[in-house]
Amino acid sequence: MSEFVVCGRLLDTLALREATAEVAALRIDAEGVIVERAPDGTDAFDALRLRDDAIVLPPDHVLIAGLSDLHIHAPQWPQAGQALDRPLEDWLGAYTFPLEARYADPAFAKAVYADLVLSLLACGTTSALYFSTIHEEASLELARACLAHGQRGFVGLVAMDDPGLCPPDYRHASAREALDATRRFIAAVRALPGNDRGLVQPVITPRFIPACSDALLEGLGALARETGVRVQTHASESDWAHQHVIERLGCTDSEALDRFGLLRPHTVLAHANFIDRDDRDRIRARDAAVAHCPISNAYFANSVLPLREILDEGVRCGLGTDIAGGYTPSIFENARQAVTSSRLRESGVDAGKPPALRGGVAGARVDFLEAFYLATRGGAEALGVSAGALRPGMMFDAVAIAGRRGHLRLQDDDTAATLVQKIVCHAGRETIVRVWVDGRAIKLKSDE
Amino acid sequence: MSEFVVCGRLLDTLALREATAEVAALRIDAEGVIVERAPDGTDAFDALRLRDDAIVLPPDHVLIAGLSDLHIHAPQWPQAGQALDRPLEDWLGAYTFPLEARYADPAFAKAVYADLVLSLLACGTTSALYFSTIHEEASLELARACLAHGQRGFVGLVAMDDPGLCPPDYRHASAREALDATRRFIAAVRALPGNDRGLVQPVITPRFIPACSDALLEGLGALARETGVRVQTHASESDWAHQHVIERLGCTDSEALDRFGLLRPHTVLAHANFIDRDDRDRIRARDAAVAHCPISNAYFANSVLPLREILDEGVRCGLGTDIAGGYTPSIFENARQAVTSSRLRESGVDAGKPPALRGGVAGARVDFLEAFYLATRGGAEALGVSAGALRPGMMFDAVAIAGRRGHLRLQDDDTAATLVQKIVCHAGRETIVRVWVDGRAIKLKSDE
Ligand SMILES: [Zn+2]
Ligand SMILES: [Zn+2]
Repeated sequence: MSEFVVCGRLLDTLALREATAEVAALRIDAEGVIVERAPDGTDAFDALRLRDDAIVLPPDHVLIAGLSDLHIHAPQWPQAGQALDRPLEDWLGAYTFPLEARYADPAFAKAVYADLVLSLLACGTTSALYFSTIHEEASLELARACLAHGQRGFVGLVAMDDPGLCPPDYRHASAREALDATRRFIAAVRALPGNDRGLVQPVITPRFIPACSDALLEGLGALARETGVRVQTHASESDWAHQHVIERLGCTDSEALDRFGLLRPHTVLAHANFIDRDDRDRIRARDAAVAHCPISNAYFANSVLPLREILDEGVRCGLGTDIAGGYTPSIFENARQAVTSSRLRESGVDAGKPPALRGGVAGARVDFLEAFYLATRGGAEALGVSAGALRPGMMFDAVAIAGRRGHLRLQDDDTAATLVQKIVCHAGRETIVRVWVDGRAIKLKSDE
Repeated sequence: MSEFVVCGRLLDTLALREATAEVAALRIDAEGVIVERAPDGTDAFDALRLRDDAIVLPPDHVLIAGLSDLHIHAPQWPQAGQALDRPLEDWLGAYTFPLEARYADPAFAKAVYADLVLSLLACGTTSALYFSTIHEEASLELARACLAHGQRGFVGLVAMDDPGLCPPDYRHASAREALDATRRFIAAVRALPGNDRGLVQPVITPRFIPACSDALLEGLGALARETGVRVQTHASESDWAHQHVIERLGCTDSEALDRFGLLRPHTVLAHANFIDRDDRDRIRARDAAVAHCPISNAYFANSVLPLREILDEGVRCGLGTDIAGGYTPSIFENARQAVTSSRLRESGVDAGKPPALRGGVAGARVDFLEAFYLATRGGAEALGVSAGALRPGMMFDAVAIAGRRGHLRLQDDDTAATLVQKIVCHAGRETIVRVWVDGRAIKLKSDE
């Protein structure tokens, strides 16, 4: 590709409760990096806008940074919107594990993963941090799907070897086998044809501590140190999982992961609902991050993440769909649920009690500007990706939104904060008209 | 219009935890009433399917009953997705009342209401129970918009006369003036050209008890008895409103409304979050109904409706968007939030406490089948409309959903319960391809 220009109304955020809206021109170099941002009214803007290679967005469009999904189970895509009323054990044993076992068939994987990657891109998700399954060939199909369709993909071959908690036909036979598979997978993703720019990255992925032996966790920690590869896992998701780790290892997930060498820069902890102040301090000190999955949490976590505290204390955080514990592939829909759940966390839920006894947490609310930050810049920072805003030096991962489509009714005089709130509340795949990743225009599947 | 036939995969529900999915043919008579339903495999099906006037839906489509929105403020449509982080007083005083006052201009009203009615129809809302403003001409524009675009509209001219709680430039000057206006409005809606079939109905609409004098409430009760016109109002929405009525009148909203003669068959009480067992018994005894607005409630009610109890006790209930206290015009999005909020009500929200002390209400969860019932049949029953399912004797208010569009991935072998869950989780305006109201095909605005 060669250098080009995009002109239009830009909306982005570099800090939690801030957002900027302005008409400006961006110059993107041949490497997909934003190298210039010129606001309307400057000579530089006029010069850029008149170039032959300028893409001028219609006046009712808004250009935002691409969204990051920090937690999604790619193999569970066929199960999205199903069985959410089952208890977790039943949901895993009767639905999820049998479905994941089907990915022994790479052809099945290939069809599902192409549909998923295209669906996420259509939803504006330019970066996704995936759990796949234990199957190497199927997991490579996921990496290939990201490359083929142009998504920034972080793909984790799942490691799970505990015979007590994993089904006999769906686990690694030993820690050694899981470690060897992870090592092979890292090399295979790095060597994929077309991945010379590193658009797709392997991720070390112990499913969660209860499904992994100590030997496996230790081995994966050593592998992370050796290779520098990112780490993801589930942490402190539910009462059961949180207590299980405390009983088995005498400490919380964050401390245990730290001991195993798995709490590293840009390690992403999915859910983390039951973390306390010590856990948060540890996660921040290690430069790790939390993937907040508010829809899934309402169904499987039996509580609400202490998101207000996480933000106030400066812990890195972004949003995850947790397909299929969450039903929707839309980060926007999770962003609004993050706000809604934070309001219920603040007020409590039992109308039969007076306000002070309703079980709420004073001051817990999170606002739409913060949710927008989590969806864009927060997610990119969690992943350690130089993106998430539309600023010089960042890669051009961006989404153009049609301002008067679907439920959206953006106005010319809307402030940045109003644009953000309307977009978080109303944007979805039907309002997304163009997507770029790494400076490349994505060919969106027409939704017929 | 003349008789016609629709063939396809039908999905509907006649009771709370049941749903039926089958391929069948419906014969709709010239009055828009379903007069025959013939399942695939019968001679009657084959005969209907071969008729010249048969509309045969594609095999991946699903036909459901139309949705009912039991609570929506039409004039607040320009404010959807804004100012949700303001306290209620500020939200009303600085945003909502000034916006509503603009409807003194019927031309402004006409443009907004056409866009709103078309948007709701595109979302599958075939019946809507509207609050308009105190302006008679603007409110008639809303009724005309329903007639012009074919929506079953229940339109309430808002009555509000309390000088303490209403702004000076936006209230009726006296109870008498509000009563006269309501009486004129009832006659005007009934006499609208094109309304001979009664597609659009007037509704007696005291805003809420705190905004109305006793004289106004008494007069509206008498008017309801005299005219047989439906009633709607807000009831027990927030701690403040609930306590205000108890202090002023010495009883709860439901008892006060009953005394004023306003708690009648198909009276719809918006929100009703703080109702207790006595209130629920009274509402059921009067054959009145609750409009559950789960998204709005998270922002402005500081609690969650006791929906489980309402359903278990057989109180009529449906869903409302409460635009603009809620941000979305989609009943599907409110249906999923009803399920999600019920799960948080069950579990409680404070992860810092052990499960038993987390502030939840045991057994409070509501499932997707129940949410689907509320969105379709529950809403129709609340309104006293013979619709909400696809059964002989009911009016043909229906929505055809494309099964593999947007996030939807319906499969041929999905059970009725799975279809329901996927549709509640994933359906939206981008998946809705055809809408009928009263047997008439709606011309949907193409979403540009
Ligand atoms: Zn997960
Ligand atoms: Zn309302």
